[in-house]
Amino acid sequence: MTTPFTALQEIGEFGLINRMLTRLGLSSDDALHQGIGDDAAVYHVGDGVVHVVTTDALIEGVHFDLSFMPMRHLGVKAIAVNVSDVVAMNAQPRYATIALGVPPGVSVEMVEALYDGLAEACRIYDLTLVGGDTTMARQLTLAVTVIGAAAEDAVVYRRGARPGDLLCVTGDLGAAYAGLKVLLDQRRAMAEAGDDFQPNLDPFRYLIQRQLTPTARLQTLRQWAAVGVRPRALIDVSDGLASEVHHLCEQSDCGALIHSAALPIDTETRHAADQFMEDVDTYALYGGEDYELLFALPEADFHRLPEGTCTVVGTFTEAADGIRIVMPEGGAFPLEAAGYQHFGPSGDEAPPNLTG
Amino acid sequence: MTTPFTALQEIGEFGLINRMLTRLGLSSDDALHQGIGDDAAVYHVGDGVVHVVTTDALIEGVHFDLSFMPMRHLGVKAIAVNVSDVVAMNAQPRYATIALGVPPGVSVEMVEALYDGLAEACRIYDLTLVGGDTTMARQLTLAVTVIGAAAEDAVVYRRGARPGDLLCVTGDLGAAYAGLKVLLDQRRAMAEAGDDFQPNLDPFRYLIQRQLTPTARLQTLRQWAAVGVRPRALIDVSDGLASEVHHLCEQSDCGALIHSAALPIDTETRHAADQFMEDVDTYALYGGEDYELLFALPEADFHRLPEGTCTVVGTFTEAADGIRIVMPEGGAFPLEAAGYQHFGPSGDEAPPNLTG
Repeated sequence: MTTPFTALQEIGEFGLINRMLTRLGLSSDDALHQGIGDDAAVYHVGDGVVHVVTTDALIEGVHFDLSFMPMRHLGVKAIAVNVSDVVAMNAQPRYATIALGVPPGVSVEMVEALYDGLAEACRIYDLTLVGGDTTMARQLTLAVTVIGAAAEDAVVYRRGARPGDLLCVTGDLGAAYAGLKVLLDQRRAMAEAGDDFQPNLDPFRYLIQRQLTPTARLQTLRQWAAVGVRPRALIDVSDGLASEVHHLCEQSDCGALIHSAALPIDTETRHAADQFMEDVDTYALYGGEDYELLFALPEADFHRLPEGTCTVVGTFTEAADGIRIVMPEGGAFPLEAAGYQHFGPSGDEAPPNLTG
Repeated sequence: MTTPFTALQEIGEFGLINRMLTRLGLSSDDALHQGIGDDAAVYHVGDGVVHVVTTDALIEGVHFDLSFMPMRHLGVKAIAVNVSDVVAMNAQPRYATIALGVPPGVSVEMVEALYDGLAEACRIYDLTLVGGDTTMARQLTLAVTVIGAAAEDAVVYRRGARPGDLLCVTGDLGAAYAGLKVLLDQRRAMAEAGDDFQPNLDPFRYLIQRQLTPTARLQTLRQWAAVGVRPRALIDVSDGLASEVHHLCEQSDCGALIHSAALPIDTETRHAADQFMEDVDTYALYGGEDYELLFALPEADFHRLPEGTCTVVGTFTEAADGIRIVMPEGGAFPLEAAGYQHFGPSGDEAPPNLTG
């Protein structure tokens, strides 16, 4: 008898998560409001307060390349991507832990620069690093966990959107992906030209900053709280807007209609897409790593948001209508979910990743 | 100008942790009772309740070898080693998250076996896996975080021991290390003999179980609670008793006198040490991965503990007396801290590790 061998590619990252949920079964913990399946888990801790917890790892060669990712930036990013998940529950980050795997060629000075980045992120997002584990590893590995806190009635899940709600997003989309393309392109050019190569990153400073040190939208929560607005459903854009809209719609039992002309895209992102002769809307929809907030808002609440703090990119509809996108030339087409997925099938439409 | 390059070996794992603490600075979080520096961090969550949080990673080739570590056991162990740190604060585990890095050659069935192990550990220790991140990696990597809860006045730190307190340990010591030696020896024998090799692990079943699926001492907390006993200082034995005694003494400003004849050592451990012609006390003092509890107890409380649930291995003394061990033939010698340390100098006296 041989053990069956199914390759991970056959079921992909989300397939794996489903297998895990089946095997774990239901929790009997009454204080647990939300387990796996949202941006963070939510559990009651007393006094009308809940905590949220999330974990995300950054692994060398998969999520970053040390040839263009400074250690300090890496430290900031490892915290920021986790804070973004806490923010996506409308909670405030409080505590972080990090399991750090360090390969042989790394120096004390490099690890210290990483620590400086972690410390900087702790100051930016007002949280404390309270625990860690440092071990040897073959790839530089940062597995960060962030715990946040919120009033029980302030937490926003993925599941609250209703037909008629506006679909809104903060900031702009596709820039981090464009930044990755620029960096990979420069790396390739450098490999070809050798030591004489002079990188020219000036025209794409914003894109590179978005790729190397993304910002979690903690300030947005404070703006919302200040004007008494609470979205009905909320998610952060880590895998591309298209994938995240699907999560919101599935969990809210809604459809959505998105206007491609409304997608907020920075000029630098457009220039980069032009340079690579690619479609900039694809960057915005499938690029990922934006760490913006995508949310459902009753139309009546929209005027209360400070001007310029978000863009309406569409509306939620009945579930039967599906998830569609209206193109500039007219006509609405189904929007595929295909965001970046670990172990996923890598077709032509998939964004590049460092291992690809 | 060149960037200085200091190798990690020059400062070791504990040196790195100290560099991190310097860079992070003090926290301004009033709810934080304990940050980095104990088995887990401790923070107030309301209603006289505190939570504790700890993170520990297991990395292929560093902490385990898939040639003799079944995936299911690995899942159990990854949770158990973190639960052990929660237990070492006298807290109950509640929630876990896992960041899982999976290399290409791993099948869906192998990951499912790992999930089965995680689920089994969640049942054993009565906690819920509430979050995860699954990504590609070059080595199988499990970074687990466990959050526990306790009444504020129930938490036990490393720092409460007083001169005159008994130094006690649960279970027995050195068995997990002996189990690792046996497994490495069988792996070597198999490599030499090829396919004809018939492993003979029967005489060392207990040792192998201690290495592959260690048990966190959660039941011990329940026994203590049932008889109203609370240790004054507490730590789990993950890096070997010698190293842990140093942590307790440093943080409690005490010394200790240990009796080597009193060290609890299983018969199988003695047999293994005999077979390898090594000193079994070295296994007990420096082996690590025992996941037993080492604690300080006022002598007056000792009779309240159920018989046979722990062994008195020494007493706490004044700090000026240092940390000494009494040998069977008489005479007390200073006890070195040298437990296993990642990036540490690897002398003859250091225990083997999978990469060594």
